[in-house]
Order: sequence, then structure tokens, then C-alpha cells
Amino acid sequence: MRIIGIDPGLLHTGWAIIDSNGPERHYIASGVILPPVKQSLSERLAFIFRGVTELCDTFKPDVCSIEYTFVNKNPKTTLILGHARAAAMVAVANCDIPIYEYEPNAIKKALTGAGHADKEQIYKMLSILLPAAHPKTADESDAIAIAMTHANTNSLVYKFK
Amino acid sequence: MRIIGIDPGLLHTGWAIIDSNGPERHYIASGVILPPVKQSLSERLAFIFRGVTELCDTFKPDVCSIEYTFVNKNPKTTLILGHARAAAMVAVANCDIPIYEYEPNAIKKALTGAGHADKEQIYKMLSILLPAAHPKTADESDAIAIAMTHANTNSLVYKFK
Repeated sequence: MRIIGIDPGLLHTGWAIIDSNGPERHYIASGVILPPVKQSLSERLAFIFRGVTELCDTFKPDVCSIEYTFVNKNPKTTLILGHARAAAMVAVANCDIPIYEYEPNAIKKALTGAGHADKEQIYKMLSILLPAAHPKTADESDAIAIAMTHANTNSLVYKFK
Repeated sequence: MRIIGIDPGLLHTGWAIIDSNGPERHYIASGVILPPVKQSLSERLAFIFRGVTELCDTFKPDVCSIEYTFVNKNPKTTLILGHARAAAMVAVANCDIPIYEYEPNAIKKALTGAGHADKEQIYKMLSILLPAAHPKTADESDAIAIAMTHANTNSLVYKFK
């Protein structure tokens, strides 16, 4: 099963592709979509949409894993994140790829076993689980973590059900 | 100039196409995009995206007019509206059509001359300005009002500048 993990944002949208085969995990690729800073909101949304569409066309993932958005303390930030997230989701859904949403604590738990692990613990665990991945930014790491969460959660479902 | 006006929502996305030529306004078409109620969030977003893309392909508008989203008192509602709005904006921007955003009061003012007109006054004014339009729902009327706002604001800019 090939998974695309997406960490959406209007400025940086992290993405990662991993293959999950039973207990095996293979890192395929990862990166960040960076809409030009001078673009308008709608141009940025189109840029994210086109970037994610290109990733789906190139890597042909079977499923998409994305963080569930909590309503932020700052509603304006929530709205902006919502726009970026929707642009990425529309691109994936338009390629008929199912989307799974995970809460931040589920991501932490699937990777470290603890729902309140900090970012450092998550990055350390990722470097052990996927040594081939060398993420250069936090957005890329987060996208890898989100993709791995679907792989691990799914594998647990497969194991225990 | 052909204008597409959009009133986005996850349940009902109103749309309207009008032509504006100097002081003349011509009603072309309007309707509502209704994603099936049983669809998931991502499927609905893709449905709105595909619907708006089809409208842009069919009617080839020159510009898009859409309501500026205020952060709602209920942040959850704001986020959901943000997703639907982003799906529509992504479709328009992906067709390289520029988007103009108008605040609710600007819409009321452009149509009735008063920033605090109620819905009834707006609908009455629309029936005078565009007698060929017979909107069947509030979403459709609102989309016509948003399209007319761009036509009228633009014509004022043309007149006074």
C-alpha cells in the first residue's frame, strides 16, 4: 500500500510518500510545496492544488493521510489553515484517493507509543523507523509522521482485528 | 465582461453567471451545486470543485466574485465554510480566472445603496435590476447578488475614476 502524507499550510505544505507492506516500511520521497510569497490567496490555493495533483499523478498513492484540524485559539489562523487543507484535500479527492484523518495525539501515539510525545521524540523515532528519509524541514518530517501513522494504525488494525 | 458569482457552502453552493456591458446587465444562468448528503467531507469538496470547474468550462467567465469570509462566532462553522469556499476558489483559480472578494456590507451597498439593507430589500432590488432571473433558493439569490456587486462596483470605478 502506498501512502501520501500531507501537512498542509498556505506557506509550506509538507508531503511524503511511503510504501507499507505488512510490517515493512519504505521511504519513497518527501518534500515541501512552496507557493511563491507574492501570490494572492487564490493563486496559492491553486498552487497547492496543482502540486498535490502532480504528486498523485507521479506516485499514484492508494490512500492519503492528513492531520485532523482542530479549531485553533485564533479563528483567523484556523480559517487560513482550513483553506490550505481544503486545497490539498480537493486535489487528492479529485484523483479518487480516499483520505484518512488523524488527530495530533494519534500521530504521536502511533509513532512513539505515547500520546504526548514531543517533536524531538517523534523525529528520533522516524529516523529509526525510516533511516532512508532525511527530511530537511519540520513540514517534511511532519508529513512523514502523518504517512507513517496511517501505515502503523492500519497494520495494528490488520493485526488485532 | 462575464462574471461568475459564488455563494459557497458544504451543503449548497449557489452560483450565478451575468454579463456586464457598461451600464447593461444580462442574466445568463444560475443554480445550486448540491453535493450528495451521504458523501464524506473530501468527496463533497471534490464535488464542489468539479461543479465549479464545469461552470467555468461551460460559461467561460472573465472574473469571479465571492463573499469575503468573516470569522464566525462559531469557529467550527468558520472552518467548514472555509473548506467549501476554498474548494470553489481552487476551481476558479485553477482556470486562471481572477477572484474578487466583497464584504457582506459592500454587497448590500452595491445593490441597494445601504450597507445595512436586509435580504428582502436585496431580493426586491435584484428582481428590478435583473427581471430575467428567477432564483429558486436563497443561495442562488445570494450568488446573483455577489455577481451583481462586482458588476456595479466595477462600473462605478469606471465611471468615477
